[in-house]
Formats: sequence, C-alpha cells, structure tokens
Amino acid sequence: MRPVLAAALLFSASTPASAQEVHADRTVTFHYTAPNAHEVSVSGDWGKGGPLTKDEAGLWSLTVGPLEPNLYSYNFTVDGKQALDPFNNRFKPERVGAANVVDVPGDKPAVWDRQPGVPHGVVHLHDYDAKALGSVRHLRIYTPPGYDKAADTRYPTLYLLHGSGDNEATWSEFGRAQVILDNLIAAGKAKPMLVVMPDGHTGPPMPRNSPKAAEARTKYLSEFETDLLSEIIPLTDSLYRTRPDRESRAIIGLSMGGNQSLIVSLNHLDLFAWVGGMSSALREPETQIAPFLKDTASANGKLRLLWIACGQDDRLLPDNQRLDALLTEKQVKHSFVQTPGAHAWPVWRRNLAEFAPKLFE
Amino acid sequence: MRPVLAAALLFSASTPASAQEVHADRTVTFHYTAPNAHEVSVSGDWGKGGPLTKDEAGLWSLTVGPLEPNLYSYNFTVDGKQALDPFNNRFKPERVGAANVVDVPGDKPAVWDRQPGVPHGVVHLHDYDAKALGSVRHLRIYTPPGYDKAADTRYPTLYLLHGSGDNEATWSEFGRAQVILDNLIAAGKAKPMLVVMPDGHTGPPMPRNSPKAAEARTKYLSEFETDLLSEIIPLTDSLYRTRPDRESRAIIGLSMGGNQSLIVSLNHLDLFAWVGGMSSALREPETQIAPFLKDTASANGKLRLLWIACGQDDRLLPDNQRLDALLTEKQVKHSFVQTPGAHAWPVWRRNLAEFAPKLFE
Repeated sequence: MRPVLAAALLFSASTPASAQEVHADRTVTFHYTAPNAHEVSVSGDWGKGGPLTKDEAGLWSLTVGPLEPNLYSYNFTVDGKQALDPFNNRFKPERVGAANVVDVPGDKPAVWDRQPGVPHGVVHLHDYDAKALGSVRHLRIYTPPGYDKAADTRYPTLYLLHGSGDNEATWSEFGRAQVILDNLIAAGKAKPMLVVMPDGHTGPPMPRNSPKAAEARTKYLSEFETDLLSEIIPLTDSLYRTRPDRESRAIIGLSMGGNQSLIVSLNHLDLFAWVGGMSSALREPETQIAPFLKDTASANGKLRLLWIACGQDDRLLPDNQRLDALLTEKQVKHSFVQTPGAHAWPVWRRNLAEFAPKLFE
Repeated sequence: MRPVLAAALLFSASTPASAQEVHADRTVTFHYTAPNAHEVSVSGDWGKGGPLTKDEAGLWSLTVGPLEPNLYSYNFTVDGKQALDPFNNRFKPERVGAANVVDVPGDKPAVWDRQPGVPHGVVHLHDYDAKALGSVRHLRIYTPPGYDKAADTRYPTLYLLHGSGDNEATWSEFGRAQVILDNLIAAGKAKPMLVVMPDGHTGPPMPRNSPKAAEARTKYLSEFETDLLSEIIPLTDSLYRTRPDRESRAIIGLSMGGNQSLIVSLNHLDLFAWVGGMSSALREPETQIAPFLKDTASANGKLRLLWIACGQDDRLLPDNQRLDALLTEKQVKHSFVQTPGAHAWPVWRRNLAEFAPKLFE
C-alpha cells in the first residue's frame, strides 16, 4: 500500500514525485510514513535536520530552512537505520550507499539549473584498463557544446576530482558540473573546456578509526597519482582534441579530491598550470607538498593560478587556514577564499562556478 | 559503529565491499545487521528470497541459490520497510528508489562481464530539449570501439528501451548493454552499431490500481512516440555518423519498453526494419498494432526481423503467447523465443546478447 500523502503527490506532480514539499519561502517539509517506528530523523547537506514528529496516521514530518537555493542531499534515519525516501527517485551517487536529493529553487535560475535555450555539452562514460592497478575503471569526460562540430578546434582541460564519499558519477549527476559549464560558457563567462571526472578511489573503503587508515590513504593517493598520470591524462589527450600542454591543463578537487589535486599537481607543475582545492583535508602540507615548497620562486613562475577555497562553517577550515598561512609564509602566489557554508556540495557547486571562469585566460 | 562482519569484509575485499557472500557453488548468503528488528527478508531478480534468520549477535542471514551466473538486483525488507544494503555500493538505477546488485560469476566470463583486452566503446550522456514535452530530458548513446578513429564510417543504430521500473541509465549501468556490445563486436558476433538508450517515462509514476492508470499509459505512450520520432531519432542522426535509413535502424525494449518498441515501430515501418520485444506487456495487440495488422503482406516485405522473446516463468508469458498466435494467424513472419527465466534482468541481458547478432546482416 502506498501512503495516501505520497499517492496524492504522485498524481499532482508533473515530475517524478517524492514525499518532500519545497515551499515558496524555501523551507522544506520532509515526510516519512512509518506508523510503528519509534524515532525518525533526517539529515542533509544543509546541516542539522533533527527528529520528525508523528501524527495520528503514522506520518512523520519535519520542516527545515529556509534554505539557500541549491540542491541538497538527505537521508532519513528510522529507528537507527538509514533509509531512503521511497518516493524520491533523485539520487546522489555515493561511494557506498546513496542519498536522496531535493532541489530548492531560487527566484531566478542558478548556474547549476538547466536553462532553456542554453546549448548542452555531452558527458562521455569511458571504461579503461588501468594497467598499473590491474582493473577496469570508470571515467566521465564532458565536452562543451559544439565540440562535435568544431573539428579543427582544440580545447583546454579541467580535471575535476570528487570527495571520499563520492564516486566518478557524483560531479555530473549531483554536482551538475556539465550544467554549470554549459551555463558559464553560454554566458561568455568561461572558456569552452573539457572536464575530466575520474574515479578517485583505488581501493576499498576504510573505517576512519582503523589503525591502517593512514597507511591506506598514502597508498591510495599514490595509486591515484599513477592512474591519473599514466592512464587518464594520456587517454584524454589521445581520444579528445585537447591542447596537451601545462598551460591548458587545470585541476581542482573537493575534500579528499582537494588533497589529490593539490598534492599531485603542485608536485607536477610540468603538467598543470591552474590549480585549485576546495575544502581540502591537507593535514601535513609541509611534507605533502614538500618538493613544491623547496623552490617557490620557480613555482610562482609556473603557476597561473593557485586557488584555495573553504566554507566558513567547514570543519576543515583550520586546516585550510594553516595551508593559507604556510603558502603566505613561503611567498607562494595564491588566493584563499572563505565562502559561506559547510563541508557540503552546495558550497562545491558554487566553488566550481567561481573557479572555472578564472581558467585559461 | 560498523558491524564486525562487514568491517572484516571491507578489509579483505579488493573491490568495494558488501555484506553478501557469493560462494564457489554459486549460492549467495545475504547478511543484514539489525539486532532489534522483528523480521528481515530479501527478494531479488532470482525470484523468491524469503526470511533471514537472526543469530545471537543480531546478524540476520539467508543463503539462496545456487543461481545461474548473472547480475541480480535485490532489496531487503526490514519490519515491512524496504532497506538498502548499507555495505554494497553497486546499484541498479530505478525509476523510483533503487536496488542493490550482486554479481554471481560463472566459470568463464559471460557476455556481460568486462573482459581484458576487449576494446571499450563509449556511452555518451545527452541532455536535450524535448520541445513537444516542454522539458529537458536525458538520453544515453553508445558508440562502438573505434568510432572516434573511423571518421568515414557510418553505423547502424539500435534503439534500446527500458521497463517501467527503470530509467535511461538502467540499460547501461545494470543491463551492461555497452559491455555486451563490446564483447559481441570483439568476437565478430555483432556488427559495430550505435545503441540509443532513451528515457521511456514522460510523466510521473502511477499506482497500478489507479482508475487513471490506463488513460495515463495511453498518454505516456503517445508522448514517448512523439519524443522518439521528433527529437531522439533526429538528434541521433544529426550528432552521430549513423546510416539514417530504415534498413539501418533497429528497436527493442523490455516489458513497458517492449510495448513501446512493438507499437511504435510496427506502426512505423518507414523508420525501422529490425524489431524486437522482450517480455512485452502487449495486452490488446489487435488494437495496439491495428494499422500494422491491416496489411501484413506489405509488412512482411518491409520487416527484416520481428523477434519476440519471453521467459518461461514470466507472468506475461500468456500475453506473449497470444501475440505469437495472432502474428501466426495473420501470417506475419516472426520469431517467438521462450527462454528460461522470469520477468527479470538476467533474462533481458541474455535477450540482448541473442538479438544484437541478428541485426544489420
């Protein structure tokens, strides 16, 4: 039996339905039907959610917000168990598990909203043999609108890395990277570019408190670097009409991907000239980017952009402030941007929309 | 806290882990940790699952099978609520909700298994403006290995439609259409072809028992036909190097997509010469393909293939037998294939592997 509320929503909605209601004031009411549950709560990208309250029919509800216009992932917890919204077919791809997605629109379309009349690029799904890792891996590559018709044009490339909870699909399915680029390019705010979205994970998940976690992180970072340098970049430059030089190559990532971006690229300025990190978890930059820090005068000559961003409510803000201070102390040219928001995708969508226009000028 | 069993699996696995165990004899043991639950069951593509039993630590377990080598989706039900496997990051994309996936390998690689040394095609994700529907829709297009290097070659196209519970991602993410084509092409068993995987849904879900369901199905079918003919086929033929003629165009779908495939194409033999239906739910073929049935002599001259398949344990077998009888009675050249299996994806993967080699000979 489908709950009455959800069925009503199913019939009234013009898009696939769910049991959350987004109100005009940008508050969101979450519903979950569980007459026999003892406790239902919801949490998501907006920060705290909290417990839902049950009515006589067994329908649990909670209103949160108002929220800033953006896409938010969320999960219910029912008597201690994570539960998906049975009436929402919009998902955030995650490394393990999944979350539902709710869209809180603003008065006018945001840069991550699909807009009528804006030409669409294409996201290409590749499987490739990662020879050093001995596995077939996934990779997504965005080509900008008109790529197929511009047979003589070569393009710069942005390598865009996800976080530890994500997979190679998250930037396109939930981050809306391709929509952001479509809109920026149509508005003349960003250069047409390719965006390469690799799988940042080379091994199985590791509990945070495992004694082997630190060792595994080092191994995984090294494996990712090998895969990026020996497979992903050559594959991209051979299959697509890129400009295969450092001045035409940018890289940025979020959280774990911020570490990967900063550590790999700052130690490989022969390959990248435009570098960013979003909400990066760089705990020991003195050792992690030691080769880079040894000759910052040379590095300053090579770097076209070093852009560090972090949300003011992000738990990793102190790490990023420490990185900013270290770079300042070492006289490395860079930008450090503190934005509103926490360690969450609403911030990273805005980060990408701010970073991409600075590239390849 | 992560349960001990799952943590152990996490550490031992070389791929992202889950809490099911696939044994050498192709039985599968499902585990779910829920010390306070009263009832835990599992169901999936293999048919019946049943209740799990709880041990003293609160770990519920059930062994099913042995299963034929294939990919199977499954869902837990915990005290009446559907629950995802918290330790499995492999999902079947569904229209509403999601299911987990377990891979039961055989002694040798199956046609849906990625195999070393087999060149990979590319799946392209398109957003397009569906003008008649007033929305931006999603579409996936597979190009075969070597497409990018063969600038003077034009290819035939297979339109591949999903079922009512699926979305435009299901055939590539769970059906493994691109892997099946890669393998068949590499073995010389199928011609290199494009595969177009549209979104078969044009409106919100409708409960089966709704009085409006029949009316909605008719409207949705008509909207899908409009979208296919006025947007998807022209877009494919304009963006890709297709052979844009009926002899180079095939279509097949499963369940709801079988209806779409048969009804749209048999009434449009000007566009398609190769037609298939898998486990189709064609309840009133006399009216649904009435224009086609009026002149079967002409139709026989145009059809290169009409291939109807259904599993012997499929609840829709009687409908497909009735369709077969009607086509026979009307002297329409066709093949009717009864295969092992039920109304489930393991059958449809095998169907595609059997259908694709027959095309474009």
